[in-house]
Amino acid sequence: MGTLSRVGIVGAGLIGSSAALALSAAGVEVFLRDRDSEQVRLAVALGAGTEWTDQRVQHAIVAVPPTAVAAELLELQRSGLAETQSDVSSVKAGPVAAARDAGCDMTAFCGAHPIAGRERGGAVAARADLFSGRPWVITPIESTGRAALTAVEQIAELCGALPVHISPDRHDAAMAVLSHLPQLLASLLAADAGLLSDEELALAGQGFRDVTRLADSDPQLWAQIIEGNRNEVAAAARRLIEVLQPALATDAPEAVARLVSDGNAGRSRLPDKIGPRPHAWQWVGVVVQDRPGELANLFAAVAEWNVNVEDIHVEHSRNAPFGRLELAVAAERATELVERLEGAGWVAYRRS
Amino acid sequence: MGTLSRVGIVGAGLIGSSAALALSAAGVEVFLRDRDSEQVRLAVALGAGTEWTDQRVQHAIVAVPPTAVAAELLELQRSGLAETQSDVSSVKAGPVAAARDAGCDMTAFCGAHPIAGRERGGAVAARADLFSGRPWVITPIESTGRAALTAVEQIAELCGALPVHISPDRHDAAMAVLSHLPQLLASLLAADAGLLSDEELALAGQGFRDVTRLADSDPQLWAQIIEGNRNEVAAAARRLIEVLQPALATDAPEAVARLVSDGNAGRSRLPDKIGPRPHAWQWVGVVVQDRPGELANLFAAVAEWNVNVEDIHVEHSRNAPFGRLELAVAAERATELVERLEGAGWVAYRRS
Repeated sequence: MGTLSRVGIVGAGLIGSSAALALSAAGVEVFLRDRDSEQVRLAVALGAGTEWTDQRVQHAIVAVPPTAVAAELLELQRSGLAETQSDVSSVKAGPVAAARDAGCDMTAFCGAHPIAGRERGGAVAARADLFSGRPWVITPIESTGRAALTAVEQIAELCGALPVHISPDRHDAAMAVLSHLPQLLASLLAADAGLLSDEELALAGQGFRDVTRLADSDPQLWAQIIEGNRNEVAAAARRLIEVLQPALATDAPEAVARLVSDGNAGRSRLPDKIGPRPHAWQWVGVVVQDRPGELANLFAAVAEWNVNVEDIHVEHSRNAPFGRLELAVAAERATELVERLEGAGWVAYRRS
Repeated sequence: MGTLSRVGIVGAGLIGSSAALALSAAGVEVFLRDRDSEQVRLAVALGAGTEWTDQRVQHAIVAVPPTAVAAELLELQRSGLAETQSDVSSVKAGPVAAARDAGCDMTAFCGAHPIAGRERGGAVAARADLFSGRPWVITPIESTGRAALTAVEQIAELCGALPVHISPDRHDAAMAVLSHLPQLLASLLAADAGLLSDEELALAGQGFRDVTRLADSDPQLWAQIIEGNRNEVAAAARRLIEVLQPALATDAPEAVARLVSDGNAGRSRLPDKIGPRPHAWQWVGVVVQDRPGELANLFAAVAEWNVNVEDIHVEHSRNAPFGRLELAVAAERATELVERLEGAGWVAYRRS
C-alpha cells in the first residue's frame, strides 16, 4: 500500500475527531461517521473532514469504546469500504479476542492505542495536536497483515505521534499500572473525600487536586476499560495493597520511608514528555534583582565564561524584589559557574 | 498583644523561608535560624530576613518536621526570646501531645498548619506567595492562650492565607484523606511503575504524571508524617480497599461505574481554587539559536529597550538547533518588543 490519502473514522469523539483534525491538517482526505450525528456535525465544522457515507478509503480508524470495537469492525469489514482497519481502544487483548470471535478478518486489522486524552470528551474537546509527541501504541498479532500494520504506522506519524510496537498482553499489563489502577485510586480518593464536610474539604491542597484529576472521568467508559483488563488491574492492586498494609499495620517508619523512596525512584525513570531525553545537565541557581539590565549582565557574564545555557527556569516570588533564575549547564561546568558567579558578587548555588 | 512587627522563624526550609519572605514583604522584621546554616544564608540572600541570634520577637514559628517540634519548642520557650509560638507541621495531635509531655508551656503555643507545599524543599524553593489564598489551619486546644491564638491568626493573614479553625483531631482525620493517603498511593503507583521496562514506562500519559506528582516527596519527612497520623491513614486505606477489592473480584462493571461516579461527585465538591491572581503579563516568544552568546545578545537588547522581563519560559524542540524563548513582559510593551526584536533580526511573536 502506498501513502495514505483517504482515511475513514468511525466514532467522532475526542480521539476520533482529534485524529481527523490531525490527518486533515496533514493533507489526508478524512471521512467521519458516528451514531451521534451531532458529533459528526461538530467535527466537520471544526475542519476535521466530511461526513462518511459510502466513500472508499485506504484505512479506517475505529474510535469507539472498547466493548463496541468488535461489532463496529465487523460491520465495517462487511461494508468493504476500508482496505485496512485499526482501533484506538485503551485495552488491547480483549477487543482482539472479541473481534476474532465475532468472525472479523484479523489480517486487515491492526490494534492500536494512541496514549493521549483529556478529561473533556467529545468532538468539542478535539485538538489537532492531541497526539503530538505522544506514543501511538501499535499491537500487531501473528495474523496481522503487513498492509494494516503499515497503515497504522503511517496514521501515527501523520498525527505527529511516536509509533511504539508492543504485544497486546504487555500493553494491557503496563496500562493496568500506568492508567487503569491510577484511575480507580483517583476515583476512590475523591469519593472518600466526598464524605468530608465542606469545611474539611476546604483543606484540600494542590496535591489532592493533582492526584484526583482523573476522577473527573466518565464512569461508563471506565467500567468498560476496567472490565476489559480486570485481571491485570487486580494484580496491580494486590501488589500495591501488599506493600501498603504492612506499612500501616504497625510502627514502621522505615517501611513508609522505603515506600516513598521507591516512589521517588519510579518517578525518576519516567521519560521526558517528548520521548526519552537523557540530560547531562546540572542546574545552577542564582539570585537576581528584579530590575532592568540584571538579566543582561548575568547572561553577558555567563557568555564571557563560555558557558552554554541549555535551559532556563525562573522561580518567582510575587511582589518580592528578588527572584531566582536557574540555568541548566553542562554538569562539568556547574561548580565552576557557581564559583565564578559568587566571585562576581552573585549569590549562586547548585540545585541538588 | 498588638500588631506583629518582629517574628522569629526556626527552620529555614520551604515553609519557614516562604513565611519569612511573605512576612518581610508585609513589613515585618523577620529573623531566621536553622541547624543548616546554608539554608539561612540562602533565605537571607533572597530577602527573607536576617539571621536570628538573640533578638527578642513577639512570635516565633517553629517550622521543623513534626517529630522535632516538641524539642525545638521547649528550647525556644526556655530561651525566652519569643512571647508566643506556633508550628506548621502537617500532623497536629501528635506534636501537641509530645510538646505537653516534654513540659512545654501550652498557653504560649498554638498549633497551626499552612496547607501549601511543593515537591522541592529547602529555602531554594521558597516563594513569598506560597500561602496566598491557601488555608492556614489553626488548631487551638483548651489550654491555648488568647495571645498565641491572635498571633498565629495575624501570621496567617500577613502571609495572605485564609485562617481556618479546627480541632487537632478533625484536622488529622481530614488530612489522612486529603493528603497522607494520597501521598502513599502516589508513591506506591510510582514504585510499581518502576518495575516496568523503559519501553513500557514510555506509555505513561499525563494522567499518570499528575497522579504520581506527589511521589517526588521526601521519604524521611513522609515517614514522620504518616507515623504521626498512622491510625487515621490506616482507617482511610481500609475504607478504600473495602470498595476496591469487591469491584475487582468479579465481573462487576456496575461497581466500577459507581466507584468512578462517586469520585466525580467527590471532585465536584472541591472548592474553587483560590490562588495567586493571574498576572497581567503578555508573553513574547523569540526563536533563538543554541549557541554561546545568543542569550547575552538577546537580554542585552531587551535591557537596552528598557523592557523588564517578569518571567522566562523555554520551549524546547528536541534535536533542533534552535529553541523558543518566551519572555513575560508588561502587556503594554509586548507589541513594541515584538517589533523591536523583528527589527533587530529575530523571529518573534506574541503568544496568544
